[in-house]
Amino acid sequence: MTVERIVALGGGHGLYATLSAARRLTPHVTAVVTVADDGGSSGRLRSELDVIPPGDLRMALAALASDSPYGRLWATIIQHRFGGSGALAGHPIGNLMLAGLSEVLGDPVAALDELGRVLGVKGRVLPMCPIALQIEADVAGLESDPRMSRVIRGQVAVATTPGKVRRVRLLPGNPPATRQAVDAIMDADLVVLGPGSWFTSVIPHVLVPGLLAALRATTARRAVVLNLADEPGETAGFSAERHLHVLAQHAPDFTVNDIVVDVNRVASERERDQLIRTAGVLNAQVQFADVSRPGTPLHDPAKLAAALQAVCERGNEPALPTTPSIPTVNPADVDGPHVLGPRGDDPWR
Amino acid sequence: MTVERIVALGGGHGLYATLSAARRLTPHVTAVVTVADDGGSSGRLRSELDVIPPGDLRMALAALASDSPYGRLWATIIQHRFGGSGALAGHPIGNLMLAGLSEVLGDPVAALDELGRVLGVKGRVLPMCPIALQIEADVAGLESDPRMSRVIRGQVAVATTPGKVRRVRLLPGNPPATRQAVDAIMDADLVVLGPGSWFTSVIPHVLVPGLLAALRATTARRAVVLNLADEPGETAGFSAERHLHVLAQHAPDFTVNDIVVDVNRVASERERDQLIRTAGVLNAQVQFADVSRPGTPLHDPAKLAAALQAVCERGNEPALPTTPSIPTVNPADVDGPHVLGPRGDDPWR
Repeated sequence: MTVERIVALGGGHGLYATLSAARRLTPHVTAVVTVADDGGSSGRLRSELDVIPPGDLRMALAALASDSPYGRLWATIIQHRFGGSGALAGHPIGNLMLAGLSEVLGDPVAALDELGRVLGVKGRVLPMCPIALQIEADVAGLESDPRMSRVIRGQVAVATTPGKVRRVRLLPGNPPATRQAVDAIMDADLVVLGPGSWFTSVIPHVLVPGLLAALRATTARRAVVLNLADEPGETAGFSAERHLHVLAQHAPDFTVNDIVVDVNRVASERERDQLIRTAGVLNAQVQFADVSRPGTPLHDPAKLAAALQAVCERGNEPALPTTPSIPTVNPADVDGPHVLGPRGDDPWR
Repeated sequence: MTVERIVALGGGHGLYATLSAARRLTPHVTAVVTVADDGGSSGRLRSELDVIPPGDLRMALAALASDSPYGRLWATIIQHRFGGSGALAGHPIGNLMLAGLSEVLGDPVAALDELGRVLGVKGRVLPMCPIALQIEADVAGLESDPRMSRVIRGQVAVATTPGKVRRVRLLPGNPPATRQAVDAIMDADLVVLGPGSWFTSVIPHVLVPGLLAALRATTARRAVVLNLADEPGETAGFSAERHLHVLAQHAPDFTVNDIVVDVNRVASERERDQLIRTAGVLNAQVQFADVSRPGTPLHDPAKLAAALQAVCERGNEPALPTTPSIPTVNPADVDGPHVLGPRGDDPWR
């Protein structure tokens, strides 16, 4: 299977990793980005101006910036944050540019296309929904009675809750999908969901009815890339298969072809078997691959690209048995550092 | 004389007018811009971040933006001001971009060149000095004793003083000239000073020793364009020749070739004769020309371009007698509306 068009859905650092990988396979990469962030610069901008939170969109643009000197320069520029201790402190220039461009052009997609042009982005960065959203979660473990759950609202609050997130919702409910994002999914050869903050950057995509319908209807190969570890806050203590369980829970009829898991993420044969069984819920094969950058909690773009390429090549083969050969695991790499900081402390927004 | 390279010195709306005219004559236009503004968005940015006030520089970039769709779009974008009532309210996007680019690139000239590239600017916009300056003025008429003068500091305070400005100084004194501005003046065919807020946008240029030396040494034809009227505040009640007097006072050995005056600015033969006599102080001929846009207090770019072209063509002729033929003046156009609002209220910064 030739990979000509890749759509990556996510937000924050996780999406940055997927995009850095995907651009190695094809110039036709579309990022579809969550728009529920309410922290940091994005939170300040959405509360001050009537704009969708620009932080994750800006990061996706930086990930897809051209390798030309101008592309690299503008990737640096849009990521640069104002210093000092005044009204601008902490705002990345790119967030302000996106907010301003949206005001001038009256359309977040036009704003992203224009800033993308300056950065020499060959693909496209799109919000999953053209309006700003809120995340609301049912969270257990915050009361003395562990069966009781409380409603927590706001992406930062959900991402950093000390409780256990049971379920998330978008507000307003059933938000519209960005038309161009739906088109991109329908035209894609490969669609990648994750990695990223599971409840606040990954699952929100399947809560947008138009996106979920497109994800179901597309002829593209559909892959889910799991995180390298659980995250403090929203997925503290979550195993790999728990990630799949909650995804399936939030999108009952959603199926995927491949689950990409770092070999170091799953330590024991028992865990591997559990994961393969759980993948069946999503009708998926599990692809164990070395996708992490040694000594860091980050996905390695080249390794992740190779894994995605392998996923596509496998798309041409007859279905595999559900027990793939498993590479040797170095136990020292298991239970390593966390993949991503909690979204509430994320300095990238 | 062929006009290939024009340098326009000034600030604010006046410089915008000169640049709009000059670009009709040649693509090689360099703007040299004052950096003492302390009001509006520029004032907020220079007090919050360690940057030169970007407002007048941004306006000059907009004036020189390419006529292509992208050039026009980005001229609109950089001039767009954030609305609302929050921390960003009133900041033009271009000011924030210039401040951010200066932080990233560590050099205001590199920042202006890069934003100029995005706008398709063919010429160049340069600060007169690479560091932010203050303006200080001796102002009379603020005390009961009219002979007493007080020191007023800050561009807004000087521009809006109800007193009579006697003399202005830059702080720090004898600031360095921007090297590229000196080079541009030395290489120019035509150098244009004014129009603009006289004490706060025009005279500051001759208070930078490096610029004054270049203005004296250049082989370029040197023209001063007078304002269409006096300004409330800093030049309230000033006649055309009073403008020339104070300019000569601030730059004793400075001579110019041509003074461009709107025909409607000087009502009577007596005033014309006075102006021609005063022009002698600067060793200059007076060029009376119709350069205003009827019914507005603004210079007309096409008419001003024609007047500058005429100045250059005259540069090839032998010196004229000091009493040129004077076109008919329509008295209805005399004492018209003010050319420029007081700098302190200028919404363009």
